[in-house]
Amino acid sequence: SPSYPEDQDPTRLLLQLCVDRYYVSPGEANKGRFQRGVSCSYGPLGAELHRNLLRQWWLSVTRSKARVFGLNTQSIGGDRATRPGQLRVVDCDGLTQLLNRRDLSTEQLVQEMKSVLQMSSPVRTNLLQGALEQFVPSSELVNRKLPFGLAEAGLCFQPANGSGCRPAEVTQTSLVWFCSPRTSSQWLDHWTRQRLKWWRKFALFLSDFSTSEVLGEDLEEATTRGVRITYDFPWGKETLETLWSRGESELLQIYGGERSKLQCRDGSKTVPHVVSMTGNMDRGVLAFLSNSFQQLKSDDGKQKLQHRKVLKLHPVLTPVKVSLNISRGATLELRQVCEGLLQEFLEADITVWPGYLETLQTSMEQLNRKYDEMGVLFTVFISETTLESGLVQVRSRDTIIKETMHISQIRNFISRYISAADNI
Amino acid sequence: SPSYPEDQDPTRLLLQLCVDRYYVSPGEANKGRFQRGVSCSYGPLGAELHRNLLRQWWLSVTRSKARVFGLNTQSIGGDRATRPGQLRVVDCDGLTQLLNRRDLSTEQLVQEMKSVLQMSSPVRTNLLQGALEQFVPSSELVNRKLPFGLAEAGLCFQPANGSGCRPAEVTQTSLVWFCSPRTSSQWLDHWTRQRLKWWRKFALFLSDFSTSEVLGEDLEEATTRGVRITYDFPWGKETLETLWSRGESELLQIYGGERSKLQCRDGSKTVPHVVSMTGNMDRGVLAFLSNSFQQLKSDDGKQKLQHRKVLKLHPVLTPVKVSLNISRGATLELRQVCEGLLQEFLEADITVWPGYLETLQTSMEQLNRKYDEMGVLFTVFISETTLESGLVQVRSRDTIIKETMHISQIRNFISRYISAADNI
Repeated sequence: SPSYPEDQDPTRLLLQLCVDRYYVSPGEANKGRFQRGVSCSYGPLGAELHRNLLRQWWLSVTRSKARVFGLNTQSIGGDRATRPGQLRVVDCDGLTQLLNRRDLSTEQLVQEMKSVLQMSSPVRTNLLQGALEQFVPSSELVNRKLPFGLAEAGLCFQPANGSGCRPAEVTQTSLVWFCSPRTSSQWLDHWTRQRLKWWRKFALFLSDFSTSEVLGEDLEEATTRGVRITYDFPWGKETLETLWSRGESELLQIYGGERSKLQCRDGSKTVPHVVSMTGNMDRGVLAFLSNSFQQLKSDDGKQKLQHRKVLKLHPVLTPVKVSLNISRGATLELRQVCEGLLQEFLEADITVWPGYLETLQTSMEQLNRKYDEMGVLFTVFISETTLESGLVQVRSRDTIIKETMHISQIRNFISRYISAADNI
Repeated sequence: SPSYPEDQDPTRLLLQLCVDRYYVSPGEANKGRFQRGVSCSYGPLGAELHRNLLRQWWLSVTRSKARVFGLNTQSIGGDRATRPGQLRVVDCDGLTQLLNRRDLSTEQLVQEMKSVLQMSSPVRTNLLQGALEQFVPSSELVNRKLPFGLAEAGLCFQPANGSGCRPAEVTQTSLVWFCSPRTSSQWLDHWTRQRLKWWRKFALFLSDFSTSEVLGEDLEEATTRGVRITYDFPWGKETLETLWSRGESELLQIYGGERSKLQCRDGSKTVPHVVSMTGNMDRGVLAFLSNSFQQLKSDDGKQKLQHRKVLKLHPVLTPVKVSLNISRGATLELRQVCEGLLQEFLEADITVWPGYLETLQTSMEQLNRKYDEMGVLFTVFISETTLESGLVQVRSRDTIIKETMHISQIRNFISRYISAADNI
């Protein structure tokens, strides 16, 4: 990787910007977790981006085929209580009481502790297991006809990785696809194309997102083929999503080898094969931030060459679509115009930033710089002119062109802009 | 509570229906957890209802006021790592290795165990703490002007309750509202009205949802007033959401008593007071299922009096809005018509049930009974007539009236029906 002067290193600049502009909550730990690709404490903008990304994933998997059903399984305990699991939730008060008992021999203490640990609830590390357990009741939904899929998004836990990291949580997405054995390889190819297309839909630079086959020794147990979708971060490639062709063995194991329970009506009576897709949406958030982060040279005439930092997030993912501002002379009437417009945007499901509530004096340049760093798609300026003629100024993040339009048109203009970007 | 013959007990019937009709995954444990008001393994319909309810909550809190921002904090560890906490995530493999060491004295073993437990990551039991920790960075968003709110929905964990229950998880919603001390009581009243209105918006029987003041001895530490929103289940009242007026003490505690860090620009420099709202959305799902569950006497003429079971869920919450069916003669053309219509519904964000994929012979009565129990809002029948005239039959769950309409009108008809119900 190229070396940069410290104040130009894109990774460092991006992470700093994420903290400054409300994507990630302040604190070095949060920045560290973010870069590690696990969940951190998101600020308001990061939380919204995260929500938008999960919603897009959900729409894409449930709309693509008629037969994808959603699930919502448990993250601790449940039917998994008796299974092995490294990470478990324990009641510390109970364990401490046990440790304080003076009447037990070391042997007894060790036995008691082990049995408490064994009885405690394991936390899930993936969503696959939950989906496999739901195969039989779900297959009744579709009269045991293949193919169909089970989709879920939720928190999973990651053990500490040895290098001093604590256990962490990750927002995973999972689509588990059940199909006939002879079609499983075609389905893996189909879903690889679909998933890559989805990731690239929101990208500014498509080539940063790519796929690679998982080679021989990296194949996981029970899998026969695997494909990784990776993003090329400034520090190297990281996996966003993994697709596996898993065969039938895990299903058979869960149902105690009873083939008859699993047989589907697919011409011949077959036990379905499983194709799994597991995505890391925390890393997804970081990938899109990284992909959309641009430093552009801006020549404002007066000062010397400056770098303009912009988050050019896809309009659909952008957390704040529009900011409302008053340019000079913050009278009561102007604020009332803003309040009305704000309500109009909220009702149309357009997220809006109430810049007009700012009472500190800020220059137009400072304001634009801030909104560009936040990735705000459009900045609306309302002025005395608006009261007279109904005209407002609208600045676009991506073109930096300022347009004048009538206040009654803005909402439709922005709605259309976003849905046009959605339908490409 | 009234006593019923066992096969007429509404609670028992409702829970059975939830399992039969894909709201809750099979298994007595899931039914138990559901009734206890904690998260269970939801089936496809339950997962969708859960999603719809959370989305409505989100829209209502973020649209109601300009200044509510979303958060996404961590459920384990994080900055909470050094705080006390009863439930913790531990690495069982590590602890077992420690227990297997033969070179430690009992004293040493107990010391080591205690220190590992102390260093392990606590899991969150509420969302309040995370929001309070985000107060300072978030207040910069609004230039330290009051009031504003921080909203989050997510999993929280509940310790075992002593009566043999294991630790469980709950989907909580949280709105933490920061306001000036002199207005906090008014805000509590305001939010109580808003929140009750929200719960009742989706209810069939409004009076089952009510509020009650928390009386003296039930007040939690640090709170000065509290209001509970309860639902009157067949087995008694249960709390859906609790609103507290919490004063300033918890904020001061988190920020080490440094008032200057917390002061807001509200005329005088004051430390804000906190009003918290915490909802249990798993119990919310059960409340709406219970509220919308009806047993109606149906007289089909032929047989003797039967009970028709219907889930009359609010159109916005209903997980499956429409089912597509072929009445007799399942030709290839009819299926193609269904596929086209299905795609049209999916694109309009209308959830659809592909009943035409059913190949088992089912009578119209059996089909309607099944869809009523699933709460499907409209059932569309496509027949040979459709191919000739474009006419389809649409049956309404709520009126059981069958209308004939042109196939090109159904999508708009259903969209309008749902948004009309949303805007009441």
